[in-house]
Amino acid sequence: MKEKDPEFFIQGVLKNNRRIIAKTITLIESSLARDKKVSFEIVKKILPYSGKSIRLGITGIPGVGKSTFIENLGLLLANSGHKVAVLAVDPTSRKSGGSILGDKTRMEKLAAHENTFIRPSPAGKTLGGVAAKTREAMLVCEAAGYDTILVETVGVGQSETKVSTMVDFFLVLLIAGAGDELQGIKKGILEIADALAINKADNDNIDKANKAKKIYEMALHFLSSSSSSWNPPVVTCSSILENGTENVWKTVIKHNKLMKRTGEFDHKRKEQAVEWMWNLVDDGLKKKFMETSIVKKEIPKISKQVKQGLISPSAAAEELLSYFNYKNILIGT
Amino acid sequence: MKEKDPEFFIQGVLKNNRRIIAKTITLIESSLARDKKVSFEIVKKILPYSGKSIRLGITGIPGVGKSTFIENLGLLLANSGHKVAVLAVDPTSRKSGGSILGDKTRMEKLAAHENTFIRPSPAGKTLGGVAAKTREAMLVCEAAGYDTILVETVGVGQSETKVSTMVDFFLVLLIAGAGDELQGIKKGILEIADALAINKADNDNIDKANKAKKIYEMALHFLSSSSSSWNPPVVTCSSILENGTENVWKTVIKHNKLMKRTGEFDHKRKEQAVEWMWNLVDDGLKKKFMETSIVKKEIPKISKQVKQGLISPSAAAEELLSYFNYKNILIGT
Repeated sequence: MKEKDPEFFIQGVLKNNRRIIAKTITLIESSLARDKKVSFEIVKKILPYSGKSIRLGITGIPGVGKSTFIENLGLLLANSGHKVAVLAVDPTSRKSGGSILGDKTRMEKLAAHENTFIRPSPAGKTLGGVAAKTREAMLVCEAAGYDTILVETVGVGQSETKVSTMVDFFLVLLIAGAGDELQGIKKGILEIADALAINKADNDNIDKANKAKKIYEMALHFLSSSSSSWNPPVVTCSSILENGTENVWKTVIKHNKLMKRTGEFDHKRKEQAVEWMWNLVDDGLKKKFMETSIVKKEIPKISKQVKQGLISPSAAAEELLSYFNYKNILIGT
Repeated sequence: MKEKDPEFFIQGVLKNNRRIIAKTITLIESSLARDKKVSFEIVKKILPYSGKSIRLGITGIPGVGKSTFIENLGLLLANSGHKVAVLAVDPTSRKSGGSILGDKTRMEKLAAHENTFIRPSPAGKTLGGVAAKTREAMLVCEAAGYDTILVETVGVGQSETKVSTMVDFFLVLLIAGAGDELQGIKKGILEIADALAINKADNDNIDKANKAKKIYEMALHFLSSSSSSWNPPVVTCSSILENGTENVWKTVIKHNKLMKRTGEFDHKRKEQAVEWMWNLVDDGLKKKFMETSIVKKEIPKISKQVKQGLISPSAAAEELLSYFNYKNILIGT
């Protein structure tokens, strides 16, 4: 019970005690009501110390060399005095029973560095849940003094969109393929990218990577940018060449300076916070609804009738909503 | 009171009485509780007669010649014996106090044809609302024997995505521009298109249109298609050349035949119906929430605190959700 005193966690975080930082994040991830109460208290108190970082989202499908890239970028920064936290959003970890991304042995050198903190975020039951925990973990790391937060996502689910709404810069990692690069790209991913980085641009791959760069540049040209002052560039990078990730970091810094000058940086962070609140409200409402026992019972039947064309979608929705009234909520809880 | 007998409307619709079809859609659009009850009854009874049509969504920003295109395509079909209904989703009509799209004088020749029915759908308060009414209007038209439903949307709001989930085929109308065609394209619009049609491909414009066709084809290549068996084509069309819209209709028919053969047609319609139900449930939940008086009162204050970084988004969401309990719902209603 002693440890559940908010002050214990707050002081540990502010003193950059990595063991306590980890414990704090675990507490925040807990769904127990009594843990929630403590973690709200903690987040509230550390909030004034958070925010002073660059938040960088990194996505890429398996095979693009994401771990090595993050390790190298992380080391580049940590060696030059930055304090770097790596948070991995892993929507698959719950299913597989363990986190494939969170494995510290994956980034051995980075994990051993005194300036770094590496942490997987196990998946919650909802996507909002996953990223909600990651967002608060990010705030904790910032309060602990980490000035660069790398949020890693696996690039196969829907988590990218959520992650892109909690970072300042969203990087999509790619590799040069067999020519028809763009067929395999996930819908919507190019539209949320602040930059594309073509990895493994080294040795025999350089030509291929440069060709891919041109194709991706054309693709980006087809999509309007979310910022009026920033056109997402395509850069190449390598994890085996010396300073092979420097290009990418320079792009992030350039973006950061520009956004701060135009005021977009502050504006975006404020908007992200409010959007986040609404995401959580929507998730919470849906959860309350789905947990109402009569709704839970009726959904399979009603969905089937809609599919068979026996009732219209709007009649079905009206029926389901009618079950969600104060009487049933009362019974349901 | 006599007219509010569901049978009056049902029989009128099934007999293709255009005056009663219009009255039925007006009733469905009504938000009065007693009208809702009657319209649910009507929709339920006509449901078995609906579904036997091709549902074609058409979007395009002002200036691409959408009205003339729809009039010509409609006339092409009506003259060859098809029964054509045109429903316009107009998200701007509520603001401007009148429907810019619904004006029948806009498509004079088509409106006068005995095989057609033209109807604007005034905007509801929510987007789900807008399109919800349009979806039911579509069912009414189908029950009345219309075999081709053209759902028109203005292409500047978010209504396209909603409309694309209620049609079999979603057509994006474009014109050739000054070369840099794609800068002005709305995010996400290419990804929901089943075909692009470059309008005004006539006279001096033919070269330009063919160039634009190539650029758009490349752009589509960059985006994966939602169907594994259909690659969205780019066609050209004209409203001043004879049979200038035939190309487009041939594409729609080709798609329709293919989708029916692969089973995707049925599957998509069933999925659309269930998705529609969930959209309405989500909208309804949010509405109940926002109408709870204490929530309504607290939102501005809490949003401001989140923007200023005084409370975290998750604490804010938790607080708002805590107000939404059976006591407040009871008071709120």
